[in-house]
Amino acid sequence: MAKPFSDSLAFLFSLLIICLLSSTPESRRPPPFPSKSSRLLKTQNILVQLKYTYETRYFHQTLDHFSFNDLPKFQQRYLINSDHWVGPNRLGPIFLYCGNEGDIEWFAVNTGFVWELAPSFGAMVVFPEHRYYGESMPYGSQKEAYKNASTLAYLTAEQALADYALLITDLKRNLSAEASPVILFGGSYGGMLAAWMRLKYPHIAIGALASSAPILQFEDIVPLDTFYDIVSNDFKRESRSCFDTIKKSWNIINSVGQKANGLDHLAKTFHLCGKLNSSEDLSDWLDSAYSYLAMVDYPYPTQFLMPLPAYPIKEVCKEIDYSPDDDGSGSSVLERIFKGVSVYYNYTGKADCFQLDDDPHGMNGWNWQACTEMVMPMSSDRDSSMFPEWEYNSTSYAEECWNQFRVIPRPTWITTEFGGHDYKSVLKKFGSNIIFSNGLLDPWSGGSVLENVSESVVALVTEKGAHHLDLRAATGDDPDWLVKQRESEVEIIQAWIHDYYDKKKTLFNM
Amino acid sequence: MAKPFSDSLAFLFSLLIICLLSSTPESRRPPPFPSKSSRLLKTQNILVQLKYTYETRYFHQTLDHFSFNDLPKFQQRYLINSDHWVGPNRLGPIFLYCGNEGDIEWFAVNTGFVWELAPSFGAMVVFPEHRYYGESMPYGSQKEAYKNASTLAYLTAEQALADYALLITDLKRNLSAEASPVILFGGSYGGMLAAWMRLKYPHIAIGALASSAPILQFEDIVPLDTFYDIVSNDFKRESRSCFDTIKKSWNIINSVGQKANGLDHLAKTFHLCGKLNSSEDLSDWLDSAYSYLAMVDYPYPTQFLMPLPAYPIKEVCKEIDYSPDDDGSGSSVLERIFKGVSVYYNYTGKADCFQLDDDPHGMNGWNWQACTEMVMPMSSDRDSSMFPEWEYNSTSYAEECWNQFRVIPRPTWITTEFGGHDYKSVLKKFGSNIIFSNGLLDPWSGGSVLENVSESVVALVTEKGAHHLDLRAATGDDPDWLVKQRESEVEIIQAWIHDYYDKKKTLFNM
Repeated sequence: MAKPFSDSLAFLFSLLIICLLSSTPESRRPPPFPSKSSRLLKTQNILVQLKYTYETRYFHQTLDHFSFNDLPKFQQRYLINSDHWVGPNRLGPIFLYCGNEGDIEWFAVNTGFVWELAPSFGAMVVFPEHRYYGESMPYGSQKEAYKNASTLAYLTAEQALADYALLITDLKRNLSAEASPVILFGGSYGGMLAAWMRLKYPHIAIGALASSAPILQFEDIVPLDTFYDIVSNDFKRESRSCFDTIKKSWNIINSVGQKANGLDHLAKTFHLCGKLNSSEDLSDWLDSAYSYLAMVDYPYPTQFLMPLPAYPIKEVCKEIDYSPDDDGSGSSVLERIFKGVSVYYNYTGKADCFQLDDDPHGMNGWNWQACTEMVMPMSSDRDSSMFPEWEYNSTSYAEECWNQFRVIPRPTWITTEFGGHDYKSVLKKFGSNIIFSNGLLDPWSGGSVLENVSESVVALVTEKGAHHLDLRAATGDDPDWLVKQRESEVEIIQAWIHDYYDKKKTLFNM
Repeated sequence: MAKPFSDSLAFLFSLLIICLLSSTPESRRPPPFPSKSSRLLKTQNILVQLKYTYETRYFHQTLDHFSFNDLPKFQQRYLINSDHWVGPNRLGPIFLYCGNEGDIEWFAVNTGFVWELAPSFGAMVVFPEHRYYGESMPYGSQKEAYKNASTLAYLTAEQALADYALLITDLKRNLSAEASPVILFGGSYGGMLAAWMRLKYPHIAIGALASSAPILQFEDIVPLDTFYDIVSNDFKRESRSCFDTIKKSWNIINSVGQKANGLDHLAKTFHLCGKLNSSEDLSDWLDSAYSYLAMVDYPYPTQFLMPLPAYPIKEVCKEIDYSPDDDGSGSSVLERIFKGVSVYYNYTGKADCFQLDDDPHGMNGWNWQACTEMVMPMSSDRDSSMFPEWEYNSTSYAEECWNQFRVIPRPTWITTEFGGHDYKSVLKKFGSNIIFSNGLLDPWSGGSVLENVSESVVALVTEKGAHHLDLRAATGDDPDWLVKQRESEVEIIQAWIHDYYDKKKTLFNM
């Protein structure tokens, strides 16, 4: 039997996005990353090497920057390319991508914008990997690093930011390039890191492009149902009946699942490879597909590893809305839902069957982060959402984290450390040189900054963009609004650098 | 035999200042705090309670903010007074003093400026204690907290800043005072914390008065001999011959110490209570006195526990320059040096004999900090300094730290975390609302910010001021320039608060 496609796809997307999935509706939080990544990575590496060239290096990194426990250092991987760098004497800029929750080579290949920009800026490109992901494993291996709460303890955003600060400071010192300006880039969680780094390390980098960075998706800064409302509206916008069909499908799945042989019936209808243990597992699988679809609802066909059509939600809804033989029994609803999500899970038609997440409680990095600092509460509204209704419950959330990791979340820590509640006045008065770029189709846009805050903290919003679309490589299919968005970004970054050069000249009479 | 005064005095001043002392000239670093503090504290407490009233509270504080190891929380002490606070509805300001390396009650009593300012601002006053000092001990007791490198590991500036952020956020939440502006105050290391807090936590506080804060005393940002040059110039300015006498005294002490019964002779000359183990111990004791004198070279007599005359260096030099019976043998030099430092160690004349620091390698907080993050390299120049010549040696510094604490210093960490090398352009572009106040007599002023950096990052410098003089309570003896300096500070702080209120009005249409 062919290896089903679902895992591969889920892996691909989970590397691009902060994913979300739930084991029970009461305690939705991001899913584990699939662990079977090595085979996939090899395939992808070839692609990377064809498209962008870089050297792979390792930095001897401090495990705990904020305490002085006697801990082993670890090897942090980073990718570097200096082909177009004009060097330290001409204060050549350094483009630093803030690696996020995955293998850094994946982010490198999916962040074409940075590579394409470097030559015209005479910039060096550096992609450091986030600790505890890819090859950058403390304690020598993933197995040791992910052993328990005590070894995972140092997987935090603050430590990652300090890693980048240390690495780039050391790199610049070695190149006598202390005066070279650093520009930060990042998408999704990486975008959050880029924005936070501007706030916390203004002496390290002069500006940040934070793409699809939901820095406000904490506590009650934005309404808790924002995320699922945006996903739902993406579907409703294509077709009201599609939205309605999905909305009623959950009850049907649930009631079919409770019948005798109901789970077998569902497994058959959805072409699952193995047995279905509960109807909830199926619902989670569908929920995932819809949420991912909203994030990657891109305006042109995407072509990595497997193709997706342009605006895939439109295609999903076409399948869900097509109903030649509705007999009113509900079976047809499930058939249509299956055809719909097949656009997402099996666009090439090559998969014979699907395997649901086979390791829902596997130890993985993002799950740990979600169980410690990155607590992003979400609810689903009864009326406005097409998903089952549920309310965020901090107690059950904490209980699950305790069960999985023996760790207690700190849900108010991120806003204490990085701010958020009063972000407009704070960023206006005390922040500078940050671009928050967002596409409104992206459900994460609801937790990001969508309005200009000041002259130098600006929002670039596209109505039809999705999850950090602007960071992708340019294509011939790019719509005008996307081309313009990227042009604006380039202009702003140029202005930061020129401003920096001017200040340097004044100070040192260059 | 009466308890000698030297310990008490050293304790007093070491609470006010970041002190420095060396065991060997090659590896000068800050001394331990005297550990026998309880008796003194009780006396002082009465004074505190007479002068300023506050409630003592405890906050259940996280030991490690940046990792998720399963560690016990600790009780952080803080002093609070709301008598003059106009409350949350009128957005009453909160004055937050960043506790530094000592008992918080000491800082409270020696920071009269904050108490005197509060009523006219309608402000609440909060003095949180720095972790690992005073009563704020992790692991339940000082003994446990100071047990070894592993228990001391969390004594860092970043953790202390996070403590303050967490404490004030919780306090404001409990009072529904989230919108109240916070103004930070701090002197010496506390001033560094206040300035850094403005950089790292702009969402927590809107401005900082950083008095005598040597944030540039790291690596080679300022010349390494700056500190001792300023001390030396403070003496030279009073009397060239005083400077010369001190400068030649080191060799005399050294050669006398090498003679038969030389150490006994020195002990007798300097009225030591016990035996002298080496002439270096005596030199260190004198070095300490001169450095402290430079820091507290205040323009009026200071009156805590024991009196010091106005501009005490002038008095010290009077004694050192007075030489009716110089027989050329050098013994008179030592006699005069003794009389000189007696102004510092025994102004009341009540001490019968002096005890040198009897625990030079005792475990204490500041020593730990100096051996981990707070590595402030210092040298003494052969010509410009009145102290023995020596060069900073990072290797022997690190060796001493290893021997004392089994810890490896991170001498470049502070500038990576907080910046420093390019502070002018960084603070100009990315910092705001900080006052760096300094008196040029203070040897720490050489490592602080002495020029305006921007409209809102300003330097208030007084030629005749010493170590955080501006933070002390007003007295009838305050010279005009001191009165004016404080007036400027008040005006600037008022402007921050008004600016904040204006912004709030615009945002919320108050």
